[in-house]
Amino acid sequence: MRILGIDPGYATIGFGLITAERAQVNMLTYGAITTPAGLPLSRRLYQIGTDMEDLIGQLKPDVISIEELFFNTNLTTGIAVAHARGVLLYTAEKCGIPLHEYTPSQVKMAVVGYGKAEKRQVMDMTRRLLHLKAVPRPDDAADALALALCHARSATSRLPLQDSRVKETI
Amino acid sequence: MRILGIDPGYATIGFGLITAERAQVNMLTYGAITTPAGLPLSRRLYQIGTDMEDLIGQLKPDVISIEELFFNTNLTTGIAVAHARGVLLYTAEKCGIPLHEYTPSQVKMAVVGYGKAEKRQVMDMTRRLLHLKAVPRPDDAADALALALCHARSATSRLPLQDSRVKETI
Repeated sequence: MRILGIDPGYATIGFGLITAERAQVNMLTYGAITTPAGLPLSRRLYQIGTDMEDLIGQLKPDVISIEELFFNTNLTTGIAVAHARGVLLYTAEKCGIPLHEYTPSQVKMAVVGYGKAEKRQVMDMTRRLLHLKAVPRPDDAADALALALCHARSATSRLPLQDSRVKETI
Repeated sequence: MRILGIDPGYATIGFGLITAERAQVNMLTYGAITTPAGLPLSRRLYQIGTDMEDLIGQLKPDVISIEELFFNTNLTTGIAVAHARGVLLYTAEKCGIPLHEYTPSQVKMAVVGYGKAEKRQVMDMTRRLLHLKAVPRPDDAADALALALCHARSATSRLPLQDSRVKETI
């Protein structure tokens, strides 16, 4: 199973592709889509949609694992991220890729085994689980790989993490 | 000039098309795109994007006037609306239609002449300015027509309303 993790944003969107077969996980590629700060939000959103569609076409994931949105910091930033996340969800549907959503604490629980783990611990465990020499850069790409790992672990566990998709039915 | 007003939402998206030539405005059509409550948000977003793309193709607007987003009520609802609004901005860019954004008080000022006007006053003035027998239903469609009128007035006035597009450059 090819799992594409996506860390949503409007300036930088991290992505990470892994394969997961039973308990075996391997990193295939990772990186980030970025948009120029000088452009209006609508232009950035269009670029995000087209770049993500191209990426899905190239990487051919079986499933997408994307972070749920929390407004714990700046509301203005959060609104812009929600706009971008809307375009990412739209694009996943457009490409017909099944979508799963996880909270940051679900990711921490799946990767580190502790829902309140530090960001550093998540990154280091992501590196170790994927047999990498260094933590991937940028952080958004490492976060995306952690999201992919989270889905791999919940999809293969006999006690899967709660699939937050249900919450989408607002 | 054909102006398409859009009142963003994820359950109901109001739209209203008018023509504006100098001080002369006329209503061409209005209505709403709706999405079923039972679907996951991602499916609703995909439907919003495809329906809006079809609508733009049919109505052939020269410009789109869309409401800015304010989080003055429910945060959860606001996040979902921001997701949908992201898809609407993406779709406008995809179709190559110039986009202008206005705050509710800019709409009130343009239509009623008073930035703190009641919703009822905005709807009645929208009806009168467009020579309609009744206030359009649903409310989302009336709001969309008011947004189109707002752009018509700001685009033809010698003292145009501030175009809030600049604020998009976050």
